[in-house]
Amino acid sequence: MPRIDPARLLADLRTLRGIGAHGRGVVRPAFSAADMEARRWLARRYQEAGLEASIDGVGNVLGRSRHPGRALLIGSHSDTQPTGGWLDGALGVIYALEVVRALAADASTRELAVDAVSFQDEESRFVGCLGSRSITGVLTAEMQEEVTDRDGVTLADALRQAGLADAPRLRIERERYAGFLEAHIEQGPQLEDSGRKIGVVNGIVGLRGIRFVFRGQQNHAGTTMMARRRDAATSLYELAYRINREFPKVAAGHSVWTMGRARIEPNATSIVPGYAELDLQFRDASEAPLDAFEAVAARLVAEMNARGGVSIEATRARAPIPPTRMDEGLQEHIAEAAERHAPGKWQRMPSGAFHDAGIVSACVPSAMLFIPSIGGISHDFAEDSRDEDIVLGCRVLADAAASILACGRA
Amino acid sequence: MPRIDPARLLADLRTLRGIGAHGRGVVRPAFSAADMEARRWLARRYQEAGLEASIDGVGNVLGRSRHPGRALLIGSHSDTQPTGGWLDGALGVIYALEVVRALAADASTRELAVDAVSFQDEESRFVGCLGSRSITGVLTAEMQEEVTDRDGVTLADALRQAGLADAPRLRIERERYAGFLEAHIEQGPQLEDSGRKIGVVNGIVGLRGIRFVFRGQQNHAGTTMMARRRDAATSLYELAYRINREFPKVAAGHSVWTMGRARIEPNATSIVPGYAELDLQFRDASEAPLDAFEAVAARLVAEMNARGGVSIEATRARAPIPPTRMDEGLQEHIAEAAERHAPGKWQRMPSGAFHDAGIVSACVPSAMLFIPSIGGISHDFAEDSRDEDIVLGCRVLADAAASILACGRA
Repeated sequence: MPRIDPARLLADLRTLRGIGAHGRGVVRPAFSAADMEARRWLARRYQEAGLEASIDGVGNVLGRSRHPGRALLIGSHSDTQPTGGWLDGALGVIYALEVVRALAADASTRELAVDAVSFQDEESRFVGCLGSRSITGVLTAEMQEEVTDRDGVTLADALRQAGLADAPRLRIERERYAGFLEAHIEQGPQLEDSGRKIGVVNGIVGLRGIRFVFRGQQNHAGTTMMARRRDAATSLYELAYRINREFPKVAAGHSVWTMGRARIEPNATSIVPGYAELDLQFRDASEAPLDAFEAVAARLVAEMNARGGVSIEATRARAPIPPTRMDEGLQEHIAEAAERHAPGKWQRMPSGAFHDAGIVSACVPSAMLFIPSIGGISHDFAEDSRDEDIVLGCRVLADAAASILACGRA
Repeated sequence: MPRIDPARLLADLRTLRGIGAHGRGVVRPAFSAADMEARRWLARRYQEAGLEASIDGVGNVLGRSRHPGRALLIGSHSDTQPTGGWLDGALGVIYALEVVRALAADASTRELAVDAVSFQDEESRFVGCLGSRSITGVLTAEMQEEVTDRDGVTLADALRQAGLADAPRLRIERERYAGFLEAHIEQGPQLEDSGRKIGVVNGIVGLRGIRFVFRGQQNHAGTTMMARRRDAATSLYELAYRINREFPKVAAGHSVWTMGRARIEPNATSIVPGYAELDLQFRDASEAPLDAFEAVAARLVAEMNARGGVSIEATRARAPIPPTRMDEGLQEHIAEAAERHAPGKWQRMPSGAFHDAGIVSACVPSAMLFIPSIGGISHDFAEDSRDEDIVLGCRVLADAAASILACGRA
């Protein structure tokens, strides 16, 4: 059985945390100076671990094993949210590095082939899961054209500035891989609440988004009588409130929906706003509640538009994600390893967050492993996990990786 | 009777429009390069008109008459909203210049003393009516300390950058003035709707503001179940919606309220927001509905806070404004002049917008004259008025000014 080095694992996680550190959190959005520095650092670590490292034309870092035979791909992403936590993505990336090193150090596993990867822009500065979409061939030209970040920077400019404009883009070698494993913090409170240490992910919830655009008439907030107003923000508040009242009536037990982004123009206290935008995102493990949410949103918009005044336009977000199942065989290897290292302290569970494994699973059998998040907090500077949980997760992953590859050989 | 020069009036208005022009609108916020250029241009025009011009330590431009005796102060403000119209403020400023020139050109009025003024920051980049507050002595140290614009620039830095840090601040000479006259576009549709050309303002509505701060817990939008969420934006949408439902029940006929500014942190589609702000502003010509609105807002906040989850804190905006009455005697002079130039085509009316006259009236008898706004549109690039209405308004103002000063002599 391969043995990971806990001190080395934690030291590398902390080194990565230092690149783009911001208090207890990390600010390392895709293609930022910190992100590219982290990717170059990672490529050097891959080389030191005996892998053949490269950074591809969208910023994916791949460490390719020099060993022959069927390989496992292991990894996650090293970019972060605009104000991100230190483990989201980073954990799975450093686990992969440590698994490679642990397998190389053990006589029984040193010939096994494990490739390590850090995908780019999982956190959607430009296109969510840009890197895994690119490597699996589902990144369309439409997704890349004219896409900009929140400050109006285009993807093309970001690639140029990161020095990647001329680098070739990798395509996944489907025949090479027995599977893809992604470890991640849970980013929710279920493991902590149930006292479990390992989550074996059985599926990833689907996700859809709608952008509502409200068009009214900008005007003076003192001289425009209420009856004459066409206030875009008033419509936004009403639609958001009514969605929050109506969705529970059609939701499934684990459905979630969020309106985390709103924009009001010109966003001044003394001006009746003439324009507003609201983003609605909703997730469930099956399609039926997602369809029901879309129908409710369409009904509310139609009702409000029928009244006149402000007009509301609803457009589907660029890239809806269907619910996906994780590979049963790979899940079984992870479950057995979890039972060996943490008997009775693991559970199967869906992932409420989307992950690169949801993209890669379309080409290569994929599975995921979760470790507990303290307080369920994530996408926040306060995100954290206990050192002992971090170490345990890596042990389970290394064990599962060895057993999957050994099984393939047998 | 003094005769204004319509071509000269319109030409100066268009020259001022050109400073900070942005399409059909103007971007000339207080202390911007465009604003300071406009103020220096105006000071030169005042000099050419025979006035003694100065720019004071907060950016007020004063053109002081060299004639002896009681004087009239006439003017408005030349700063604009972040995306402003070309006439808001500018109209009254150029009217004052033209009245000075018209009176100087007529034998019967050439000895009358008219001072012209452009106040600073009426539009509240830092402190609403900064200039008229400063000149009348009601600008407190508290209003200036740590006040910043929307980009975080401090007032002290803006004054330094505008070269005003060491300039003395003017104080109004109360004994000098028979009155203050401010002409302005109506910024609403009442004159246009009734086919009238001149509004004689009888009062300015009072204004209060409340800032609501929502504190919840930022979290991941996929993994945080609905029941566990403390979503600051959800609370914001609910409070705004309920205010819009409850306020009509206690409003007076001309009450208005606006929630034109909201801020959500971090304002990302995939993150449950942990922090939000909402600004509520409300206006009425009497205090009772304003008190009722405050009571309703306090009740809704208390109800929502009692539920737990997100906490809401409500704080009164910095500078509430009580309803103010315009001087009856000055109103009468403007009404008589309006009847001479536009018989039957004028009306008395309250001002729904606040103006510097609302500040100055505490020291010096004040009155206002409105001309129609096309479509009632203001605080927008599309803001406009017809040339013939602009010319008529200036004729009425010049006539009223001459009659007020002649009356004071008699």
